[in-house]
Amino acid sequence: MVYIGVDLGGTNIAVGLVDEEGKILHKDSVPTLLERGPEPVIKDMAHLSLKVIKDAGYTLDDVKAIGVGVPGLADKTGVVIFCTNLRWHMVPLREIMQSIIDKPVFIDNDATVAGLAESVAGVSKGVANSVFLTLGTGVGGGIVIDHKIYSGSHGVGSELGHMTVQCEGRRCTCGSIGCWEQYSSATALIRQGREAVEKNPDSLIVKMVNGDLDKIEARTVIDAARQGDKVACEVYDKYIYYLAIGIVAIINAFDPEVIALGGGVSKAGDFLLEPLRKKVAEYVFYKDLPYARIEIATLGNDAGIIGAAMLGK
Amino acid sequence: MVYIGVDLGGTNIAVGLVDEEGKILHKDSVPTLLERGPEPVIKDMAHLSLKVIKDAGYTLDDVKAIGVGVPGLADKTGVVIFCTNLRWHMVPLREIMQSIIDKPVFIDNDATVAGLAESVAGVSKGVANSVFLTLGTGVGGGIVIDHKIYSGSHGVGSELGHMTVQCEGRRCTCGSIGCWEQYSSATALIRQGREAVEKNPDSLIVKMVNGDLDKIEARTVIDAARQGDKVACEVYDKYIYYLAIGIVAIINAFDPEVIALGGGVSKAGDFLLEPLRKKVAEYVFYKDLPYARIEIATLGNDAGIIGAAMLGK
Repeated sequence: MVYIGVDLGGTNIAVGLVDEEGKILHKDSVPTLLERGPEPVIKDMAHLSLKVIKDAGYTLDDVKAIGVGVPGLADKTGVVIFCTNLRWHMVPLREIMQSIIDKPVFIDNDATVAGLAESVAGVSKGVANSVFLTLGTGVGGGIVIDHKIYSGSHGVGSELGHMTVQCEGRRCTCGSIGCWEQYSSATALIRQGREAVEKNPDSLIVKMVNGDLDKIEARTVIDAARQGDKVACEVYDKYIYYLAIGIVAIINAFDPEVIALGGGVSKAGDFLLEPLRKKVAEYVFYKDLPYARIEIATLGNDAGIIGAAMLGK
Repeated sequence: MVYIGVDLGGTNIAVGLVDEEGKILHKDSVPTLLERGPEPVIKDMAHLSLKVIKDAGYTLDDVKAIGVGVPGLADKTGVVIFCTNLRWHMVPLREIMQSIIDKPVFIDNDATVAGLAESVAGVSKGVANSVFLTLGTGVGGGIVIDHKIYSGSHGVGSELGHMTVQCEGRRCTCGSIGCWEQYSSATALIRQGREAVEKNPDSLIVKMVNGDLDKIEARTVIDAARQGDKVACEVYDKYIYYLAIGIVAIINAFDPEVIALGGGVSKAGDFLLEPLRKKVAEYVFYKDLPYARIEIATLGNDAGIIGAAMLGK
């Protein structure tokens, strides 16, 4: 059997046909065009699924199920409870999909499905317990326990970006205080870089954006640090510390075999991993015992499709 | 069948004979006398087990297994890796026990077995996923996922007291910074109370200990707050905030059905639960969705015996 995986993003809908091992056989994408509201978007997801099946030389009979990764939260009845960035609220996604394709439809959070993908076919392959983290606009978490997605008893777990790491710190958009993503997301790194160069305008960071601080990206700070710019190095070291502190909490609590890093910041590769592993070793509770490997996720953007597809396995 | 549960503490060894439902049929205790070193202590555990079986009117044939809860960490081969407060390091506990009683021996951390006990016969009974927290000298954690103990892939998980909640905060005894137990243990509440009354010597807290600040206990602060003492109320409110922040992290990450509170501070009962539940509701990520019930653990000191016994089930 084969599986359809749908990765619903704010810009594009990506659909792939995926085999039992989590390999993409064929994929395609269309613009999301969010402003139309949920129903036409979901119908496009269904029509693109049919196209991908056909273009790959398969028929609907070969497809066991459809999985959808959404940037939000869904319940077990196939209703998207909300996707804040898409402005979706209580959308009967499964019902609309099934009005076009009569197959089982599974829906889960996008970071969660990416974690599942890495566990089936990526860096966490073969490992029972793993945690996936996206270091992007926020910090997303995907938890796999005993080879299965773990979202908790009410489906509200794995929001690892909203563990407080600084309880007298910054107010988070979620209403809590000092959430980890306020310190360890790509957004946070940009903010930290910007704040630093406002005080130190001779930093290489400023030259790299030709003085336009709005153009600072996470990789601007990382590249400047790589080139040894003092201000950028200080910001990046502090960022690594914040990231390490949260990862240590995950190790001390969940003790997975692998912690896989995805999202924009993870593109720094070894320049991220090496100092991060050192800091984690310094702060982890059981310093003399084995603990999680920290690795860069290997599936990149395909993780969304693959993980969604594997929801139906 | 019945089970032997051994609760190894720094002061006493408590042993109980426990039935399939987690009910204690008979129990007894002897002083630990730590200064003798591990071997005589473990032999006493075995001899007391034999006595408890006999006094309860059972024979060794009725006993399926022996479980031991230790204030530290054990591996799967039955070796206690370390118990910091007992100054035990690499102690072959199972081997010594089995030299006297030839039964399967299981060993786990004391907070973890207490969590299992609450899950089998206490406040978390019947619930698949629960988290137990002891608010005592430190903050200990016991995680039950899908009715089973969860200690992670290397057995170093569930150290929930060592999640950082204040990453520019107090240095912890573990070498990390701003660990939750530095803010939410009974020890932390005592320290917070003491620091506050040093600045405000007219607090009721000072009267309650006749001016001897070394006599401040967690319950001194709690009782003074209960009586409306302003200084004590401020300290206690802040303590509730710290406790709530860590519980919110647990809900956002693990999303259990029940969070059970044990240890000294939990004796405050509703005076703890009511403000705590309010603060958690304020900070939890998904404010409009169901999340964990926060409750006081019900088994008290018996949790150690019951949970240890249930390791063998």
